[in-house]
Amino acid sequence: MPRLVDHDVRRRQLAEAVWRVVTRDGIDAASVRGVAREAGASMGSLRHYFASQTALLAFAMRLVTDRVERRVSALLADGPPSATALVHEALPLDSARQVENEVWIAFTARSLVDRTLRDLRAEAHAGLRALCRRAVEARCPGRAGDGIDLAAEAERLHALVDGLALHAALDPDRATPARLVALVDRHLDELGPG
Amino acid sequence: MPRLVDHDVRRRQLAEAVWRVVTRDGIDAASVRGVAREAGASMGSLRHYFASQTALLAFAMRLVTDRVERRVSALLADGPPSATALVHEALPLDSARQVENEVWIAFTARSLVDRTLRDLRAEAHAGLRALCRRAVEARCPGRAGDGIDLAAEAERLHALVDGLALHAALDPDRATPARLVALVDRHLDELGPG
Repeated sequence: MPRLVDHDVRRRQLAEAVWRVVTRDGIDAASVRGVAREAGASMGSLRHYFASQTALLAFAMRLVTDRVERRVSALLADGPPSATALVHEALPLDSARQVENEVWIAFTARSLVDRTLRDLRAEAHAGLRALCRRAVEARCPGRAGDGIDLAAEAERLHALVDGLALHAALDPDRATPARLVALVDRHLDELGPG
Repeated sequence: MPRLVDHDVRRRQLAEAVWRVVTRDGIDAASVRGVAREAGASMGSLRHYFASQTALLAFAMRLVTDRVERRVSALLADGPPSATALVHEALPLDSARQVENEVWIAFTARSLVDRTLRDLRAEAHAGLRALCRRAVEARCPGRAGDGIDLAAEAERLHALVDGLALHAALDPDRATPARLVALVDRHLDELGPG
Protein backbone atom coordinates (compact mmCIF):
# COMPACT_ATOMS: atom_id res chain seq x y z
CA MET A 1 0.00 0.00 0.00
CA PRO A 2 1.50 3.40 -0.96
CA ARG A 3 2.17 5.95 1.74
CA LEU A 4 -0.42 8.70 1.62
CA VAL A 5 2.21 11.39 2.18
CA ASP A 6 5.84 11.13 1.18
CA HIS A 7 7.43 12.88 4.12
CA ASP A 8 10.70 13.65 2.33
CA VAL A 9 8.82 15.28 -0.53
CA ARG A 10 6.68 17.24 1.93
CA ARG A 11 9.72 18.43 3.84
CA ARG A 12 11.32 19.62 0.60
CA GLN A 13 8.14 21.44 -0.41
CA LEU A 14 8.15 23.21 2.93
CA ALA A 15 11.82 24.14 2.57
CA GLU A 16 11.06 25.56 -0.87
CA ALA A 17 8.28 27.61 0.71
CA VAL A 18 10.97 28.96 3.08
CA TRP A 19 13.08 29.98 0.08
CA ARG A 20 10.15 31.81 -1.53
CA VAL A 21 9.39 33.73 1.66
CA VAL A 22 13.08 34.55 2.21
CA THR A 23 13.70 35.87 -1.30
CA ARG A 24 10.45 37.87 -1.35
CA ASP A 25 10.09 39.19 2.22
CA GLY A 26 13.36 38.43 4.02
CA ILE A 27 14.43 35.79 6.49
CA ASP A 28 12.55 37.21 9.48
CA ALA A 29 9.29 36.62 7.59
CA ALA A 30 10.20 32.91 7.39
CA SER A 31 8.63 32.08 10.76
CA VAL A 32 6.72 28.83 11.27
CA ARG A 33 3.53 30.87 10.83
CA GLY A 34 4.75 32.69 7.70
CA VAL A 35 5.93 29.50 6.02
CA ALA A 36 2.72 27.65 6.91
CA ARG A 37 0.76 30.42 5.18
CA GLU A 38 3.06 30.32 2.13
CA ALA A 39 2.80 26.53 1.84
CA GLY A 40 -0.96 26.45 2.45
CA ALA A 41 -0.34 24.25 5.50
CA SER A 42 -1.57 24.45 9.08
CA MET A 43 0.81 25.51 11.84
CA GLY A 44 0.26 22.08 13.39
CA SER A 45 1.27 20.16 10.28
CA LEU A 46 4.33 22.36 9.88
CA ARG A 47 5.29 21.74 13.50
CA HIS A 48 4.98 18.01 12.78
CA TYR A 49 8.01 18.39 10.54
CA PHE A 50 9.87 21.29 12.16
CA ALA A 51 9.71 22.07 15.87
CA SER A 52 11.10 25.59 15.56
CA GLN A 53 12.02 28.34 13.10
CA THR A 54 15.69 27.41 13.48
CA ALA A 55 14.93 23.77 12.56
CA LEU A 56 13.01 25.00 9.51
CA LEU A 57 15.77 27.39 8.43
CA ALA A 58 18.47 24.78 9.02
CA PHE A 59 16.60 22.31 6.80
CA ALA A 60 16.08 24.91 4.07
CA MET A 61 19.76 25.82 4.29
CA ARG A 62 20.83 22.18 4.03
CA LEU A 63 18.69 21.86 0.92
CA VAL A 64 20.92 24.49 -0.76
CA THR A 65 24.16 22.71 0.20
CA ASP A 66 22.67 19.32 -0.83
CA ARG A 67 21.92 20.67 -4.29
CA VAL A 68 25.41 22.11 -4.69
CA GLU A 69 26.95 18.82 -3.50
CA ARG A 70 24.79 16.83 -5.87
CA ARG A 71 25.89 18.98 -8.82
CA VAL A 72 29.56 18.71 -7.84
CA SER A 73 29.23 14.91 -7.41
CA ALA A 74 27.66 14.61 -10.86
CA LEU A 75 30.57 16.58 -12.28
CA LEU A 76 33.14 14.37 -10.52
CA ALA A 77 31.40 11.22 -11.77
CA ASP A 78 32.41 12.20 -15.32
CA GLY A 79 36.12 12.02 -14.44
CA PRO A 80 38.47 14.69 -13.08
CA PRO A 81 36.77 18.02 -13.87
CA SER A 82 38.57 21.09 -15.17
CA ALA A 83 39.23 23.96 -12.78
CA THR A 84 36.74 26.13 -14.65
CA ALA A 85 33.99 23.47 -14.52
CA LEU A 86 34.48 23.14 -10.74
CA VAL A 87 34.41 26.86 -10.04
CA HIS A 88 31.46 27.49 -12.36
CA GLU A 89 29.43 25.06 -10.21
CA ALA A 90 29.86 27.46 -7.29
CA LEU A 91 28.61 30.51 -9.21
CA PRO A 92 24.96 31.57 -9.72
CA LEU A 93 24.97 31.11 -13.50
CA ASP A 94 21.33 30.13 -14.03
CA SER A 95 18.02 31.15 -12.51
CA ALA A 96 17.82 28.14 -10.15
CA ARG A 97 21.24 28.94 -8.70
CA GLN A 98 20.39 32.65 -8.55
CA VAL A 99 17.51 31.81 -6.20
CA GLU A 100 19.79 29.55 -4.12
CA ASN A 101 22.34 32.35 -4.01
CA GLU A 102 19.88 34.94 -2.69
CA VAL A 103 18.59 32.53 -0.07
CA TRP A 104 22.18 31.73 0.82
CA ILE A 105 23.06 35.39 1.43
CA ALA A 106 20.13 35.66 3.86
CA PHE A 107 21.21 32.45 5.65
CA THR A 108 24.80 33.70 5.80
CA ALA A 109 23.80 36.92 7.53
CA ARG A 110 21.57 35.02 9.96
CA SER A 111 24.35 32.51 10.69
CA LEU A 112 26.35 35.32 12.35
CA VAL A 113 23.78 35.41 15.19
CA ASP A 114 22.45 31.81 15.23
CA ARG A 115 24.63 28.93 16.48
CA THR A 116 22.87 26.15 14.59
CA LEU A 117 23.06 27.97 11.29
CA ARG A 118 26.65 29.00 12.05
CA ASP A 119 27.78 25.36 12.12
CA LEU A 120 26.02 24.64 8.82
CA ARG A 121 27.53 27.79 7.29
CA ALA A 122 31.00 26.79 8.51
CA GLU A 123 30.66 23.35 6.88
CA ALA A 124 29.66 24.92 3.57
CA HIS A 125 32.53 27.40 3.86
CA ALA A 126 35.02 24.55 4.31
CA GLY A 127 33.44 22.69 1.38
CA LEU A 128 33.82 25.64 -0.98
CA ARG A 129 37.38 26.22 0.18
CA ALA A 130 38.16 22.55 -0.64
CA LEU A 131 36.59 22.96 -4.09
CA CYS A 132 38.72 26.06 -4.69
CA ARG A 133 41.83 24.23 -3.50
CA ARG A 134 41.09 21.47 -5.99
CA ALA A 135 40.65 24.00 -8.80
CA VAL A 136 43.93 25.72 -7.91
CA GLU A 137 45.77 22.38 -7.85
CA ALA A 138 44.31 21.49 -11.25
CA ARG A 139 45.86 24.68 -12.65
CA CYS A 140 49.19 24.40 -10.80
CA PRO A 141 50.15 20.70 -11.00
CA GLY A 142 53.47 20.07 -9.30
CA ARG A 143 53.98 23.75 -8.57
CA ALA A 144 53.66 23.52 -4.79
CA GLY A 145 57.46 23.77 -4.45
CA ASP A 146 57.60 26.44 -7.14
CA GLY A 147 56.94 29.55 -5.06
CA ILE A 148 53.17 29.06 -5.37
CA ASP A 149 51.36 29.08 -2.04
CA LEU A 150 48.46 26.77 -2.84
CA ALA A 151 46.61 27.49 0.42
CA ALA A 152 46.78 31.24 -0.17
CA GLU A 153 45.67 30.84 -3.80
CA ALA A 154 42.74 28.69 -2.69
CA GLU A 155 41.70 31.33 -0.14
CA ARG A 156 42.00 34.11 -2.72
CA LEU A 157 39.90 32.17 -5.23
CA HIS A 158 37.37 31.34 -2.50
CA ALA A 159 36.99 35.01 -1.57
CA LEU A 160 36.70 35.95 -5.25
CA VAL A 161 33.95 33.36 -5.82
CA ASP A 162 31.99 34.46 -2.74
CA GLY A 163 32.41 38.11 -3.71
CA LEU A 164 31.23 37.49 -7.26
CA ALA A 165 28.19 35.55 -6.03
CA LEU A 166 27.33 38.48 -3.75
CA HIS A 167 27.69 40.90 -6.65
CA ALA A 168 25.44 38.73 -8.83
CA ALA A 169 22.65 39.35 -6.30
CA LEU A 170 23.43 43.02 -5.58
CA ASP A 171 24.29 44.20 -9.08
CA PRO A 172 22.81 41.73 -11.56
CA ASP A 173 22.98 44.13 -14.52
CA ARG A 174 26.76 44.30 -14.28
CA ALA A 175 27.61 40.98 -12.61
CA THR A 176 25.88 38.87 -15.27
CA PRO A 177 26.59 35.14 -15.62
CA ALA A 178 28.80 35.86 -18.65
CA ARG A 179 30.76 38.45 -16.69
CA LEU A 180 31.26 36.14 -13.69
CA VAL A 181 32.55 33.42 -16.00
CA ALA A 182 34.92 35.84 -17.78
CA LEU A 183 36.34 37.10 -14.47
CA VAL A 184 36.94 33.70 -12.85
CA ASP A 185 38.29 32.20 -16.08
CA ARG A 186 40.79 35.04 -16.38
CA HIS A 187 41.74 34.53 -12.74
CA LEU A 188 42.32 30.80 -13.29
CA ASP A 189 44.31 31.50 -16.47
CA GLU A 190 46.69 33.66 -14.45
CA LEU A 191 47.28 30.73 -12.10
CA GLY A 192 48.30 28.37 -14.85
CA PRO A 193 47.30 26.81 -18.18
CA GLY A 194 43.98 24.93 -18.29
CA MET B 1 22.08 79.13 25.31
CA PRO B 2 23.16 75.54 24.66
CA ARG B 3 20.66 73.10 23.23
CA LEU B 4 19.53 70.64 25.89
CA VAL B 5 19.82 67.73 23.50
CA ASP B 6 22.17 67.58 20.55
CA HIS B 7 19.94 65.82 18.07
CA ASP B 8 22.78 64.67 15.83
CA VAL B 9 24.55 63.06 18.76
CA ARG B 10 21.29 61.44 19.88
CA ARG B 11 20.61 60.08 16.42
CA ARG B 12 24.11 58.61 16.30
CA GLN B 13 23.67 57.00 19.70
CA LEU B 14 20.44 55.43 18.52
CA ALA B 15 22.12 54.17 15.35
CA GLU B 16 24.87 52.63 17.46
CA ALA B 17 22.17 50.91 19.52
CA VAL B 18 20.91 49.47 16.21
CA TRP B 19 24.41 48.11 15.50
CA ARG B 20 24.60 46.46 18.92
CA VAL B 21 21.22 44.79 18.48
CA VAL B 22 22.07 43.68 14.92
CA THR B 23 25.43 42.13 15.80
CA ARG B 24 24.05 40.41 18.93
CA ASP B 25 20.52 39.32 17.93
CA GLY B 26 20.18 39.90 14.18
CA ILE B 27 18.54 42.57 12.07
CA ASP B 28 14.94 41.49 12.73
CA ALA B 29 15.49 42.25 16.42
CA ALA B 30 16.32 45.85 15.45
CA SER B 31 12.69 46.98 15.53
CA VAL B 32 11.74 50.41 16.89
CA ARG B 33 10.76 48.62 20.12
CA GLY B 34 13.96 46.54 20.34
CA VAL B 35 16.22 49.52 19.71
CA ALA B 36 14.33 51.70 22.21
CA ARG B 37 14.93 49.01 24.84
CA GLU B 38 18.63 48.75 23.93
CA ALA B 39 19.10 52.53 24.04
CA GLY B 40 17.09 52.98 27.24
CA ALA B 41 14.71 55.30 25.36
CA SER B 42 10.94 55.37 25.12
CA MET B 43 9.22 54.25 21.93
CA GLY B 44 7.86 57.80 21.63
CA SER B 45 11.26 59.46 21.80
CA LEU B 46 12.66 56.98 19.27
CA ARG B 47 9.73 57.71 16.93
CA HIS B 48 10.57 61.41 17.27
CA TYR B 49 13.79 60.65 15.37
CA PHE B 50 12.78 57.70 13.22
CA ALA B 51 9.25 57.15 11.97
CA SER B 52 9.77 53.49 11.03
CA GLN B 53 12.15 50.55 11.29
CA THR B 54 13.30 51.19 7.72
CA ALA B 55 14.16 54.82 8.57
CA LEU B 56 16.12 53.60 11.59
CA LEU B 57 17.96 50.92 9.62
CA ALA B 58 18.69 53.33 6.77
CA PHE B 59 20.21 55.82 9.20
CA ALA B 60 22.31 53.12 10.91
CA MET B 61 23.46 51.92 7.49
CA ARG B 62 24.40 55.45 6.41
CA LEU B 63 26.47 55.75 9.56
CA VAL B 64 28.65 52.86 8.31
CA THR B 65 29.16 54.42 4.88
CA ASP B 66 29.81 57.87 6.45
CA ARG B 67 32.61 56.40 8.56
CA VAL B 68 34.19 54.65 5.59
CA GLU B 69 33.96 57.85 3.53
CA ARG B 70 35.48 59.89 6.35
CA ARG B 71 38.42 57.50 6.60
CA VAL B 72 38.97 57.52 2.84
CA SER B 73 38.76 61.35 2.75
CA ALA B 74 41.35 61.59 5.54
CA LEU B 75 43.60 59.31 3.52
CA LEU B 76 43.15 61.38 0.35
CA ALA B 77 43.90 64.60 2.26
CA ASP B 78 47.46 63.34 2.78
CA GLY B 79 48.13 63.26 -0.98
CA PRO B 80 47.56 60.47 -3.51
CA PRO B 81 47.35 57.26 -1.46
CA SER B 82 48.98 53.99 -2.44
CA ALA B 83 46.81 51.21 -3.82
CA THR B 84 47.37 49.16 -0.67
CA ALA B 85 46.41 52.06 1.64
CA LEU B 86 43.17 52.54 -0.32
CA VAL B 87 42.19 48.88 -0.31
CA HIS B 88 43.13 48.37 3.34
CA GLU B 89 40.57 51.08 4.22
CA ALA B 90 37.86 48.82 2.82
CA LEU B 91 38.88 45.77 4.90
CA PRO B 92 37.86 44.99 8.51
CA LEU B 93 41.38 45.25 9.95
CA ASP B 94 40.54 46.50 13.45
CA SER B 95 37.76 45.86 15.95
CA ALA B 96 35.78 49.00 15.02
CA ARG B 97 35.70 47.99 11.37
CA GLN B 98 34.92 44.37 12.31
CA VAL B 99 31.73 45.58 13.98
CA GLU B 100 30.89 47.75 10.95
CA ASN B 101 31.53 44.74 8.73
CA GLU B 102 29.14 42.45 10.62
CA VAL B 103 26.45 45.11 10.63
CA TRP B 104 27.07 45.63 6.94
CA ILE B 105 26.56 41.96 6.10
CA ALA B 106 23.17 42.08 7.87
CA PHE B 107 22.22 45.26 5.98
CA THR B 108 23.35 43.73 2.70
CA ALA B 109 21.10 40.71 3.13
CA ARG B 110 18.17 42.92 4.12
CA SER B 111 18.79 45.23 1.14
CA LEU B 112 17.79 42.37 -1.19
CA VAL B 113 14.19 42.65 0.07
CA ASP B 114 13.92 46.36 1.05
CA ARG B 115 13.88 49.10 -1.60
CA THR B 116 15.16 51.92 0.62
CA LEU B 117 18.10 49.89 1.85
CA ARG B 118 18.71 48.61 -1.69
CA ASP B 119 19.39 52.13 -2.97
CA LEU B 120 21.81 52.82 -0.10
CA ARG B 121 23.52 49.48 -0.72
CA ALA B 122 23.84 50.25 -4.45
CA GLU B 123 25.49 53.60 -3.67
CA ALA B 124 28.01 51.95 -1.37
CA HIS B 125 28.65 49.25 -3.98
CA ALA B 126 29.44 51.91 -6.61
CA GLY B 127 31.67 53.73 -4.12
CA LEU B 128 33.73 50.63 -3.37
CA ARG B 129 34.00 49.82 -7.07
CA ALA B 130 35.36 53.36 -7.67
CA LEU B 131 37.89 52.89 -4.85
CA CYS B 132 39.00 49.59 -6.41
CA ARG B 133 39.26 51.24 -9.82
CA ARG B 134 41.50 53.90 -8.34
CA ALA B 135 43.70 51.27 -6.68
CA VAL B 136 44.01 49.33 -9.94
CA GLU B 137 44.94 52.50 -11.85
CA ALA B 138 47.58 53.32 -9.22
CA ARG B 139 49.20 49.94 -9.93
CA CYS B 140 48.79 50.06 -13.71
CA PRO B 141 49.66 53.66 -14.74
CA GLY B 142 49.44 54.10 -18.48
CA ARG B 143 48.66 50.45 -19.03
CA ALA B 144 45.09 50.93 -20.23
CA GLY B 145 46.21 50.37 -23.82
CA ASP B 146 48.52 47.56 -22.75
CA GLY B 147 46.10 44.63 -22.79
CA ILE B 148 44.94 45.42 -19.23
CA ASP B 149 41.17 45.71 -18.88
CA LEU B 150 41.00 48.21 -16.03
CA ALA B 151 37.23 47.81 -15.56
CA ALA B 152 37.54 44.03 -15.29
CA GLU B 153 40.47 44.32 -12.88
CA ALA B 154 38.51 46.77 -10.73
CA GLU B 155 35.55 44.36 -10.63
CA ARG B 156 37.80 41.44 -9.75
CA LEU B 157 39.46 43.40 -6.93
CA HIS B 158 36.03 44.58 -5.74
CA ALA B 159 34.73 41.01 -5.54
CA LEU B 160 37.92 39.89 -3.78
CA VAL B 161 37.59 42.67 -1.17
CA ASP B 162 33.91 41.91 -0.52
CA GLY B 163 34.66 38.18 -0.32
CA LEU B 164 37.53 38.71 2.13
CA ALA B 165 35.38 40.96 4.32
CA LEU B 166 32.72 38.25 4.38
CA HIS B 167 35.32 35.64 5.33
CA ALA B 168 36.63 37.87 8.11
CA ALA B 169 33.18 37.63 9.72
CA LEU B 170 32.52 33.96 8.93
CA ASP B 171 35.96 32.51 9.57
CA PRO B 172 37.87 34.97 11.78
CA ASP B 173 40.45 32.40 12.91
CA ARG B 174 41.67 31.92 9.36
CA ALA B 175 40.75 35.25 7.73
CA THR B 176 42.70 37.36 10.24
CA PRO B 177 43.60 40.99 9.52
CA ALA B 178 47.19 39.92 8.72
CA ARG B 179 45.93 37.28 6.28
CA LEU B 180 43.55 39.70 4.53
CA VAL B 181 46.40 42.17 4.09
CA ALA B 182 48.74 39.47 2.75
CA LEU B 183 46.15 38.28 0.22
CA VAL B 184 45.19 41.71 -1.15
CA ASP B 185 48.79 42.91 -1.21
CA ARG B 186 49.81 39.87 -3.23
CA HIS B 187 46.86 40.48 -5.55
CA LEU B 188 47.90 44.11 -6.09
CA ASP B 189 51.54 43.09 -6.63
CA GLU B 190 50.42 40.85 -9.48
CA LEU B 191 48.74 43.83 -11.12
CA GLY B 192 51.87 45.98 -11.11
CA PRO B 193 54.66 47.42 -8.95
CA GLY B 194 53.62 49.56 -5.96
